[in-house]
Amino acid sequence: MHELKRCLRDFAIARDWEQFHSPKNLSMALSVEASEIVEHFQWLTEEQSKNLPKDTLEQVESELADTLIYLIRLADQLDIDLLAAAHSKIEVNERKYPVDKSKGNARKYTEPDR
Amino acid sequence: MHELKRCLRDFAIARDWEQFHSPKNLSMALSVEASEIVEHFQWLTEEQSKNLPKDTLEQVESELADTLIYLIRLADQLDIDLLAAAHSKIEVNERKYPVDKSKGNARKYTEPDR
Amino acid sequence: MHELKRCLRDFAIARDWEQFHSPKNLSMALSVEASEIVEHFQWLTEEQSKNLPKDTLEQVESELADTLIYLIRLADQLDIDLLAAAHSKIEVNERKYPVDKSKGNARKYTEPDR
Amino acid sequence: MHELKRCLRDFAIARDWEQFHSPKNLSMALSVEASEIVEHFQWLTEEQSKNLPKDTLEQVESELADTLIYLIRLADQLDIDLLAAAHSKIEVNERKYPVDKSKGNARKYTEPDR
Repeated sequence: MHELKRCLRDFAIARDWEQFHSPKNLSMALSVEASEIVEHFQWLTEEQSKNLPKDTLEQVESELADTLIYLIRLADQLDIDLLAAAHSKIEVNERKYPVDKSKGNARKYTEPDR
Repeated sequence: MHELKRCLRDFAIARDWEQFHSPKNLSMALSVEASEIVEHFQWLTEEQSKNLPKDTLEQVESELADTLIYLIRLADQLDIDLLAAAHSKIEVNERKYPVDKSKGNARKYTEPDR
Repeated sequence: MHELKRCLRDFAIARDWEQFHSPKNLSMALSVEASEIVEHFQWLTEEQSKNLPKDTLEQVESELADTLIYLIRLADQLDIDLLAAAHSKIEVNERKYPVDKSKGNARKYTEPDR
Repeated sequence: MHELKRCLRDFAIARDWEQFHSPKNLSMALSVEASEIVEHFQWLTEEQSKNLPKDTLEQVESELADTLIYLIRLADQLDIDLLAAAHSKIEVNERKYPVDKSKGNARKYTEPDR
């Protein structure tokens, strides 16, 4: 991931595109890519979404790549360590949803905790 | 990233939450997290977005973590290699936007290629 | 809708909030509200989404209202007649998907036309 | 708006498309359309977003129409009165942000109230 980060940074700098890469703009681009993934699933059932035709799967793969790319660029511009942040979040979630209390208990999934 | 993938898979299985993790549902969760990032920037100027107060930066970091987590879970359920997909995409972009033609040429940024 | 438009415009002007209401910012706010709706449905099945508990329905109603509010504000700032635009779009769709060819034919829903 | 609601309902029924219009699916389609609007603004400055070229403005108008269309369909499926919900929300906001306390006070815009 660190290699990807440097690679994407060099890519933008070489083309003089950093001017467009404010965190505000990158957050928009990231959300747009995430929605392009949603678009592939919006009319499918959950079951169909588990068994995508080959060409759809390839398009979704491309959209997942774009999403990761903008996520890495955004984290880089904010000087955030993405992997460390994810590991911290998992630890928080492990404390918040201990296995013994969470197993079979879909409360997280039936009562959104916003 | 492979370690994160296994870790997140085990986390969901241990709590019997895989039932909620269809690709359709995960695409929705991913897009919601991406929008939670956008929300922090929607009333800021681009300049302000480069200089976030410490507490806002911490919240954004948490949201970036959630976004990466759902992206990894979704790729895992679709059996997609995220890093390989990102590297392929970068190669495609390098051919599509060669430095000599792209430098200073903001066409990618002024004419969205949908 | 025209009354709502004027009402929302006066609301923003009275509080000196127009400074934040660039189309760029309003598009972000609109997408965030739309995602807040998605969040209520992300772990539900399609069937469950048709039978929401009363309190969830009230929250969704509030989010639908916020979405309409930002949509009207954005259209107002761009001087776009929302109702006329919707009527035009329906006419386009009626020509694109004539009943005799579309009935039972889920092509629009199985092959997204991006 | 009531006419649009009936028109869109008849359109879906005539083509036997109601089967795809669960609230879950419609919330996804709505968020995708809102993101298509964001895409037009992601690389523009706030100032540029106020002065769109004619062809971009036409595309944005089309996307605003699609967003309204899915919003009306979703409200219809949930039996929610969109206009009444918007009016209620405005009253709530008028109490939450009285003019005398809000004018010049950008707290709503500097401290998001999630």
